[in-house]
Amino acid sequence: MKGCFITLEGPEGAGKSTQTTRLKRFLEKRRLPCIATREPGGTPIGDRIRELLLDPGAGEMSLQAEVLLYAASRAQLVEEVIRPALEKGWTVLCDRYVDSSMVYQAYGAGASPKDVRQVNQVAIQGLLPDRTYLLDLPLEESIRRLEGRGISRDRIELKGQAYHQKVRDGFHHLATLHPERFCIIDGTLSADEVFSRIVMDLQKTLGEKIPLREDGSG
Amino acid sequence: MKGCFITLEGPEGAGKSTQTTRLKRFLEKRRLPCIATREPGGTPIGDRIRELLLDPGAGEMSLQAEVLLYAASRAQLVEEVIRPALEKGWTVLCDRYVDSSMVYQAYGAGASPKDVRQVNQVAIQGLLPDRTYLLDLPLEESIRRLEGRGISRDRIELKGQAYHQKVRDGFHHLATLHPERFCIIDGTLSADEVFSRIVMDLQKTLGEKIPLREDGSG
Repeated sequence: MKGCFITLEGPEGAGKSTQTTRLKRFLEKRRLPCIATREPGGTPIGDRIRELLLDPGAGEMSLQAEVLLYAASRAQLVEEVIRPALEKGWTVLCDRYVDSSMVYQAYGAGASPKDVRQVNQVAIQGLLPDRTYLLDLPLEESIRRLEGRGISRDRIELKGQAYHQKVRDGFHHLATLHPERFCIIDGTLSADEVFSRIVMDLQKTLGEKIPLREDGSG
Repeated sequence: MKGCFITLEGPEGAGKSTQTTRLKRFLEKRRLPCIATREPGGTPIGDRIRELLLDPGAGEMSLQAEVLLYAASRAQLVEEVIRPALEKGWTVLCDRYVDSSMVYQAYGAGASPKDVRQVNQVAIQGLLPDRTYLLDLPLEESIRRLEGRGISRDRIELKGQAYHQKVRDGFHHLATLHPERFCIIDGTLSADEVFSRIVMDLQKTLGEKIPLREDGSG
């Protein structure tokens, strides 16, 4: 692949979409062609799958069906959007990708990690990110930010503190398994500071493929 | 599992739904509890997936996404309908199941058989049918019946004779791989004759679990 594939991961409220937008603007200012996308969704078919996944009226979904639907949305996004852009040499920024499935569906909800891996191997056909930024938040801060988004503590507690802890531990576990790809960034830092750390890391690791030098400002 | 799981496979127009309905009525007359279902669909979530799969306006779907969506519908059907019924000791009749994915998506459309197998292992969690009736039709008869359903020869030819031949060969190949489970029935016989062969085979192979004896009429 000629382009670079960069994903942002972390709990809800960690600032992934803010940083994705900012990074896109930053690259565009430097006339570096790029696209930003998100999961689930990002394609017309993926958006229909997203609706089904997030529709509380759809009825109780089996964990396997959920794993397969997230993977179907991902497969479509890879084939329709990500791979063609990378082949053109563009940078692709993606808000969540295969690591979120492993963390939320396996570590969090209890699907077999082997099943999640097996299904997603088919969905991504070998296409792993060049770099993954894990925006990390301590448990309490994560819950505080969810409340700030109007999600009641009751609803958060419904899933249980244990669940949110498993999600956080899951992300860290993946980062340990794939140190060549993961970069953990403290999500409690200011958005400016998080952004500048991402840019610094990008210069260091992918600078040869993405010529970022200049002033380094967002 | 206490109940028996029976699937019907074969090309469109081979008589699967007719035989499924007839078999259901036959079992009910003998007060043998059973349900009949079909794929894709069979659950509210599965029906939404079916809509998406069969909607020509959804846009071009990647082959991997298609494999994953069929499997998601199947996973939901297994967990919500098939497994609970089998656990109660009911007979489950299913019009198409995992073999159709292998035949249409792998042998027919060209997905990797390993991928289709890998994804469907997760969807069915080990639940294979006790018996699979393959209603077999020669290529020309299959095309003739599709035309009889108002599908123009042009549209049939669009997929190409080679495609329909691959589908037929695919079913035969699976039957060879799983002789303990497959029973091939000549779909050009009358509906009565096909039905009586299914019942005879059921008595022989699953008679201890499904007490079918009596007059043997539909």
